[in-house]
Amino acid sequence: MRLGNLPGIRRLPMYLGILRQFQRNGQTAVSSIDIADASGVVVPVVRKDIEMTGASGKTGVGFDTAQLIADIENFLGWNNPLGAFLAGAGHLGSALLGYEALRRHGLDIVAAFDVDPEKIGSRIHSIEVLPLRKMPSLARRMHIATGIITVPSHAAQQVADAMVKAGITRIWSFASTILSVPDGVTVQREDLSAGLAELLVRSGANSAS
Amino acid sequence: MRLGNLPGIRRLPMYLGILRQFQRNGQTAVSSIDIADASGVVVPVVRKDIEMTGASGKTGVGFDTAQLIADIENFLGWNNPLGAFLAGAGHLGSALLGYEALRRHGLDIVAAFDVDPEKIGSRIHSIEVLPLRKMPSLARRMHIATGIITVPSHAAQQVADAMVKAGITRIWSFASTILSVPDGVTVQREDLSAGLAELLVRSGANSAS
Repeated sequence: MRLGNLPGIRRLPMYLGILRQFQRNGQTAVSSIDIADASGVVVPVVRKDIEMTGASGKTGVGFDTAQLIADIENFLGWNNPLGAFLAGAGHLGSALLGYEALRRHGLDIVAAFDVDPEKIGSRIHSIEVLPLRKMPSLARRMHIATGIITVPSHAAQQVADAMVKAGITRIWSFASTILSVPDGVTVQREDLSAGLAELLVRSGANSAS
Repeated sequence: MRLGNLPGIRRLPMYLGILRQFQRNGQTAVSSIDIADASGVVVPVVRKDIEMTGASGKTGVGFDTAQLIADIENFLGWNNPLGAFLAGAGHLGSALLGYEALRRHGLDIVAAFDVDPEKIGSRIHSIEVLPLRKMPSLARRMHIATGIITVPSHAAQQVADAMVKAGITRIWSFASTILSVPDGVTVQREDLSAGLAELLVRSGANSAS
């Protein structure tokens, strides 16, 4: 596995958005310079990022747009979405359930779980909300290896523990706490309050500036 | 302004969550070691992060829990929420409008904007959705300097341009494109598809692994 270029991996979805725009505009061939111009990323970095995916262009011609899209999607595993469970059907969880782009981004949420009796049994964007206690047995039965955590931070570790016990090896967590998981389990943390704190301090909105 | 420690700034919201939990449990004094244990961050880094906020503890006693919470909140500017406009009242935008914690995190969304006639005039979590074309004049009139972009990526630059023209100097963008803004405008990008790509590649879910 080539993990040396995580920032590059994070840029690939942006390149895909740009390439699809080129494709919609009828541009069948594309160069690293085109992508650099549209993304604001410098050319050598664009080249290195694309090289990582195994895509190959032709000197003076560039890349076939459709082929480059396919190569990047293949590298990211987006053409073969993984079934995922979501725990926590609150505001953020509901937004993710309604975020149709997720499926195109490699993730197919097949069920949501919550502890709130008012939510259990309902459907959010046509995905059923089930009792959280049923998550482990269902994950095992359905061979689900990917979990999304959108429960309040104080409940996140407990949910992560239950996911790990159920055989989930890949956790996308929106809780602000750092989750403790055994080796072999990958956690990706998306902390909106961290991003907001960074924005406020960087822009001098806080009193320390 | 002390900007040398952005990762530390990103950790502060997590410490606040932990400190509030300590406070709820009746723990009136707290040490760096307590915070390290609860956060999974090593002690010297916790010490450095807290030092950045200007909070001071006593040797052998540690920090007064309530005072440390106040010092961190003050550093982040969370006790004085900034009025903000949100552009794009889709799934993600609606989730942010309903995310009550945002106000406690320094941001007070006072109006939302969209181009969809079906959304305009409605209220989402009691925040009114107005026509996007009214955003610039309202931002100037209400002295709003903070904008949140949750429109589709292909429309993001245009919205950012309108925000900048209207005097907004602080943009929290959920679009995957890199926004081009003049000096003096701070952009914080939260790209969920980037996080997801990182998770899939790091966990070996993609074909390249």
